[in-house]
Amino acid sequence: MTDLSRDIEALARRAREASHALAALSSREKDGWLEASAARLEASKSAILEANHVDLGEARDKGLSEPMVKRLDLAEKWNDMLAGLRDVAALPDPVGEMTDVRLRPNGLQVGRMRIPLGVIAIIYESRPNVTVDAAALCVKAGNAVILRGGSEAFNTNGALAEALREAAGEVGLPQDALALVPTRDRAAVDALLRQHRYVDLLIPRGGPGLIRKCTEESTIPVVAHDAGVSHVFLDASADPEMARAIVLDSKIRQMAVCNGIETLLVHQDAVHSVLPDVLKALHEEGVEIRGCPVTCETFSEAVPANEADWSEEYLGPILAVRVVAGLDAAIEHIRSYGSKHTEVIVTRDYESAHAFVRRLDSCVVGVNCSTAFSDGYRLGLGAEIGISTSKLHWYGPMGLEGLTTRKFVLFGDGQLRE
Amino acid sequence: MTDLSRDIEALARRAREASHALAALSSREKDGWLEASAARLEASKSAILEANHVDLGEARDKGLSEPMVKRLDLAEKWNDMLAGLRDVAALPDPVGEMTDVRLRPNGLQVGRMRIPLGVIAIIYESRPNVTVDAAALCVKAGNAVILRGGSEAFNTNGALAEALREAAGEVGLPQDALALVPTRDRAAVDALLRQHRYVDLLIPRGGPGLIRKCTEESTIPVVAHDAGVSHVFLDASADPEMARAIVLDSKIRQMAVCNGIETLLVHQDAVHSVLPDVLKALHEEGVEIRGCPVTCETFSEAVPANEADWSEEYLGPILAVRVVAGLDAAIEHIRSYGSKHTEVIVTRDYESAHAFVRRLDSCVVGVNCSTAFSDGYRLGLGAEIGISTSKLHWYGPMGLEGLTTRKFVLFGDGQLRE
Repeated sequence: MTDLSRDIEALARRAREASHALAALSSREKDGWLEASAARLEASKSAILEANHVDLGEARDKGLSEPMVKRLDLAEKWNDMLAGLRDVAALPDPVGEMTDVRLRPNGLQVGRMRIPLGVIAIIYESRPNVTVDAAALCVKAGNAVILRGGSEAFNTNGALAEALREAAGEVGLPQDALALVPTRDRAAVDALLRQHRYVDLLIPRGGPGLIRKCTEESTIPVVAHDAGVSHVFLDASADPEMARAIVLDSKIRQMAVCNGIETLLVHQDAVHSVLPDVLKALHEEGVEIRGCPVTCETFSEAVPANEADWSEEYLGPILAVRVVAGLDAAIEHIRSYGSKHTEVIVTRDYESAHAFVRRLDSCVVGVNCSTAFSDGYRLGLGAEIGISTSKLHWYGPMGLEGLTTRKFVLFGDGQLRE
Repeated sequence: MTDLSRDIEALARRAREASHALAALSSREKDGWLEASAARLEASKSAILEANHVDLGEARDKGLSEPMVKRLDLAEKWNDMLAGLRDVAALPDPVGEMTDVRLRPNGLQVGRMRIPLGVIAIIYESRPNVTVDAAALCVKAGNAVILRGGSEAFNTNGALAEALREAAGEVGLPQDALALVPTRDRAAVDALLRQHRYVDLLIPRGGPGLIRKCTEESTIPVVAHDAGVSHVFLDASADPEMARAIVLDSKIRQMAVCNGIETLLVHQDAVHSVLPDVLKALHEEGVEIRGCPVTCETFSEAVPANEADWSEEYLGPILAVRVVAGLDAAIEHIRSYGSKHTEVIVTRDYESAHAFVRRLDSCVVGVNCSTAFSDGYRLGLGAEIGISTSKLHWYGPMGLEGLTTRKFVLFGDGQLRE
């Protein structure tokens, strides 16, 4: 074992020890830390932005693209980040909730109590505000957290984590409950991925390379917060105006988000009634159309799509468009090429809506609405740490409840099984 | 890629394809398969028991211990196995349940629908009846299943699986939804552990070696159904008669089960009032006491325990006994040496009961009852595929609900996010 992997193991072990104290805290104590963190960040604002300035300079020197540099910039996200802490403080605490409480025939009272998972590790890329957002949600749910941010935000993340730990010290929380991997060395990630003895959940947030690495190498259970290849299917009976509005909102509201669509599927009976207007509107918004042969016939500005386009996540102003024989073919296409993220049907037909919802197993399936609602806030979860496309543990937009588990609790007065 | 791993991948891919049809079945269709399976097993009984006879003969030839041979013997479990199929048919179907349905302020209706996980792989040891029990639960929850039993039950498992697949054919279910790994070659397990593309959940049921292998090598998410190091803690105020009855029921009702206790913890103030009677009763039942120094002073038949005894899973007539300073020390001991399985406090004190339940994060925590209630049937789940000591996805005794997940469903009438 190298010194580095020994250090990571020690950090994970201390987080585990701290997690017991955290799990026993009242909501008031956890919210006290959130308030203290906001105050401490505000007090350290100039030092933190100075650290951010160093990261921004290094990023520009290394020739990172301007969108990448922009994601690193903390100054304009500052107020949202602080408001986020207060929003999390205002959320109901999921811990301690008792559900499914029943009396067994022998008088034994059996129920399930919601408890923190314990220790959560989060590996994320570029945006340094995730350091604060993720720590807030993990601690509110009673968990210790181990953070590993992108190396390009190393100085910013260090300054942010320091403020969060100081706030913990101020209000009597164990500082080890908030750990930041203290090195840019990539070997630290390899060591972290093996700490299943001390870490209960790993949440990777980033590109496909990171997700694959975690899925294939981590011995800690992973809830992958993956990118998305999402679809809108325009059924034969789709209302043309609703179809146009939903496709536009699902594609161009924000291009680089996982709940935006990458492929539009169109029932062959809607090609003439619905498709031209939709494609024209997209084209006017600067979206390149990569179409199947029928699409290219219908819309002269379309360029031919190839097989790879159906599973591509463009995250930008390109949309693949395919005409299909009907609902069965649409479902088959989504199963073959999709990433189980978000799928919407636009239809006026009851049977199509029913079958689409019943048969697709993506984490969010909708009828007659924008895919942009696939979001923890918009679905009423109060917060979002990401969108899980792993079926285990939590599936879909994930808030505080996804950061907990439930134990069985038994209250008896001497019951024996005999 | 070897031929074997190509075969395993193909088997997993076919199971994935079959899983879509399975997920769409009604309860009546799935229950029809369960009934047809019972009939088909009964019709093939002599052929199956003949295959079992071959396995038993090979096991004896290889010199397997008599308890191991007994676990292989299907004849005496036959009626229970068939009754189990009919019991599963009678359980409510978890699939399709809609919960948390709410209207968002914009009129969008948001809810969560319970759906099958998809494909479940189960790796188990020795008892061939698990082939039928596990397949029944997985299919009832709408999942395809890939089974890998112990090599010593190879012929029996093959005959059982054949009957289950024939029953599927009879009622129009895809036979690929019921796959048995068709070789004793251990390399097949290594190949199976890498099929995360097609398999959603891996349930290992067996000894610590199997669990460790799956935890460390599987790229499929694992819900470990591990053995248990469970505890009873006798508090200072424990009723002596209740203490004696609960300890006996928790230890000697069945020795070789994971919800039996391996260590008894005793508050130092209960040493004189409670402990001697409890130890005497255990000793009379043939249980060897391995005690801490105070225990050995109190009870002359006790032998000194060493450090390894506190984390040992005896699964037999041995019990480690330790006197502790109080509740804090008991919790500390359980956290250090336990396996997060089942913990019970015997007490008349409200504060002790409250703190024990609140602070321990084992999957089952009880007050004044036998640890033997840590069982899916006894807790009212209707069935049990095992007891998960993994906090992710499901924690504790696991029935049909643990074999499902929940997707988000959105019903709109044109909502945009804009």
